[in-house]
Amino acid sequence: MPGPTSYFDYADLDKLPADRAQLVQRRRRAMGAAYRLFYADPVEFVRGRGTRLFDDQGTEYLDAYNNVPTTGHADPRIIAAISDQAGRLNTHTRYLAEATVRYSEDLLATFPDGLDNVMYSCTGSEANDLALRIAKSTTGGEGVIVTAEAYHGITTETGAISPSLGGPESLPPWVRTVPAPDSYRGTTDFADGVSAALASFHEQGIKPAALIFDTIFASDGVQTPDPTVLGAAVDAVRSAGGLLIADEVQAGFGRLGTGMWGFSALGLVPEMVTIGKPMGSGQPIAAVVSRHELIDRFGADVRYFSTFAANSVSIAAAQATLDALAEDDLVTKAKSTGDYLRAGLDRLAERHPQIGDVRGNGLFVGIDLVSDRAARTPAADYAFAIVNAMRERRVLTAAVGAGRNVLKIRPPMPFDESDADEFLAALDSSLNDTPLEH
Amino acid sequence: MPGPTSYFDYADLDKLPADRAQLVQRRRRAMGAAYRLFYADPVEFVRGRGTRLFDDQGTEYLDAYNNVPTTGHADPRIIAAISDQAGRLNTHTRYLAEATVRYSEDLLATFPDGLDNVMYSCTGSEANDLALRIAKSTTGGEGVIVTAEAYHGITTETGAISPSLGGPESLPPWVRTVPAPDSYRGTTDFADGVSAALASFHEQGIKPAALIFDTIFASDGVQTPDPTVLGAAVDAVRSAGGLLIADEVQAGFGRLGTGMWGFSALGLVPEMVTIGKPMGSGQPIAAVVSRHELIDRFGADVRYFSTFAANSVSIAAAQATLDALAEDDLVTKAKSTGDYLRAGLDRLAERHPQIGDVRGNGLFVGIDLVSDRAARTPAADYAFAIVNAMRERRVLTAAVGAGRNVLKIRPPMPFDESDADEFLAALDSSLNDTPLEH
Repeated sequence: MPGPTSYFDYADLDKLPADRAQLVQRRRRAMGAAYRLFYADPVEFVRGRGTRLFDDQGTEYLDAYNNVPTTGHADPRIIAAISDQAGRLNTHTRYLAEATVRYSEDLLATFPDGLDNVMYSCTGSEANDLALRIAKSTTGGEGVIVTAEAYHGITTETGAISPSLGGPESLPPWVRTVPAPDSYRGTTDFADGVSAALASFHEQGIKPAALIFDTIFASDGVQTPDPTVLGAAVDAVRSAGGLLIADEVQAGFGRLGTGMWGFSALGLVPEMVTIGKPMGSGQPIAAVVSRHELIDRFGADVRYFSTFAANSVSIAAAQATLDALAEDDLVTKAKSTGDYLRAGLDRLAERHPQIGDVRGNGLFVGIDLVSDRAARTPAADYAFAIVNAMRERRVLTAAVGAGRNVLKIRPPMPFDESDADEFLAALDSSLNDTPLEH
Repeated sequence: MPGPTSYFDYADLDKLPADRAQLVQRRRRAMGAAYRLFYADPVEFVRGRGTRLFDDQGTEYLDAYNNVPTTGHADPRIIAAISDQAGRLNTHTRYLAEATVRYSEDLLATFPDGLDNVMYSCTGSEANDLALRIAKSTTGGEGVIVTAEAYHGITTETGAISPSLGGPESLPPWVRTVPAPDSYRGTTDFADGVSAALASFHEQGIKPAALIFDTIFASDGVQTPDPTVLGAAVDAVRSAGGLLIADEVQAGFGRLGTGMWGFSALGLVPEMVTIGKPMGSGQPIAAVVSRHELIDRFGADVRYFSTFAANSVSIAAAQATLDALAEDDLVTKAKSTGDYLRAGLDRLAERHPQIGDVRGNGLFVGIDLVSDRAARTPAADYAFAIVNAMRERRVLTAAVGAGRNVLKIRPPMPFDESDADEFLAALDSSLNDTPLEH
């Protein structure tokens, strides 16, 4: 990956305390060079509760980054569901299970009419991989259009549509990138970009299969485009025979505060939706939600089975997560807390010219850090410094976007106004104490 | 998939009891046409313990099929490990975790010197997908050689090397199939087949990346070739620049009774080993074990992260599984019980000409059913009938192999001699009561 990142550099091993350095070395020896660790000073957590994590010294951190513990770290309702089911049975989908059917029905009830079929996997990567298989199989096409900084997974197929992993030169001939909608620095119209990609496919005799994007455009720096921006692009893809796949792995399950799914706020109904991360509160479960007619065609030729996907324990965790989201009214709260947080960030921006833009919906927020506000110059090294300054202040964040200069705020959903105040104070202090010429 | 299978046929919906038919219909409506159900009369399990499963009526079944509940269904040690860890913290590998490093070290200690690096995924599919990525990236090749009935996963990439899913015509140009070693019907030498595949790659300018096979050749009908059969093939692949990947997703973790890993009994040390299914006793965890020098090269260019892979709860389950395997001495027991079971099957074969061959190692057994013993004709429809007859006798099995005529016996590892006796009695009765002209 080009440019500075928020990861630990092994060259700095001797700057760590001896016991931590030893653990980092053991880890590198066993797990190898491809794994990264967050932060210049990596942290070891041993306990969590709600929006809080505690490290091996008992030090408390505010978690403003992890969306996987949906209803909070170590939610007793999720623990009970997992423990109870594991104590009875953990098996797979080649046997009947009423609980799996019931969860599937409950999940589908959160989608608009027509999105009436669910197929399970263990990871968002597998869900996107399956969605592409279905799209290619049912359209007979192979061309896929993604955004310029897209990340859709780590399988060979989903890595191939993830320019954020290896840059545009890593992409196969059947992939085209278009700049994501960008309300801050954008210069091109999204629909124009998609039309150009379709024209390029047409020229090269590549039939389009799908347009896929993350509905919050997280790896593109967090974007919340107006519905009018996307409709024309999607129409063009459909006219050319392709499908729309909404990647809701990060944005889904109510975090945006605009309902359960990000595509609604964009005025779209996709042919397929992929979901994952927060789905089972940490239990590895993900899914493709799609239209029955697609799966009827796909399933006539293909049998689908995954040993672990939708196993009994994962379904129990997913059901408990869905129920707890409703019980705590967390979608409504995501909207109000998110609005509160962004208002606070806007106030900080009045005093800190490094904050170029504040974006997002609900509890998915991007803070665009710039070295020159007039020129909107991405401050990448600086964002890395701020992520580490926040970590020193015991607040967890990370940086995303083409310039790796956008702080991504995506906390467990119980994150409340007092958490937001704590976050704002830590950011204020970090910006005060971290000069731009860092 | 061609030919008869052990799956429920939706055309038979009206043969089911009303409440089961209704659940099957709800399932089909929500989860669609690509999912299959085992058995002509699908079964709903609600509880498990040891080698036993109990259906919604409280009826007890002997599980001779599921290897995922490694140390038995609902092992209290695994439940405690999962519950305890979920109650404290469930997080990912971008933070330090002593438990993850310790498990990695314990796991690697079960491998020969040189296989000293582990990278985690959630499923065997993802592990094989990653192994291919590493093989292609580090060799610069793309050609992959698999066995004729191979199954390596459901991602786009691993589906592409799985002829058992869609037949040879479904394979991309960079895949070659070779007949698996076959001690019963085999006519070709494995090394000759691999040489022909390499020659074909050479002719077409395709550089080889890997030879990959399941070390028990499960989907090829369960094979236990002599070490001498494979060595020459592997040497040829290495001479051509390719790597050997041992797929231990089914065979691994001691089930074969010949040590922890199937490749040892084949006299091989692969460059990469993929592991999964029994690894976390149902918790979705899998891995690629490989040589450090490969990962040093791969990791220099590629960063690797999977949100759910090796999360805290999955690692706790994997550690408890590894510890329980040792505590109960299950690898030794797999050998003795497997020998006992195969001796019993050989005795059954004296009275039942439908049993053409009995193969396997430890608790991975193939029973090759034939309609004509002299001609060794695969009895596919018949195997389907026997699988259902065994289900009626409350014993769980399935059928595999090119002719779908090989019963696959792969039980939880506490499966003991009394379980074996029960299995043998049910099979004796099923064969007695099921005429070949079924």
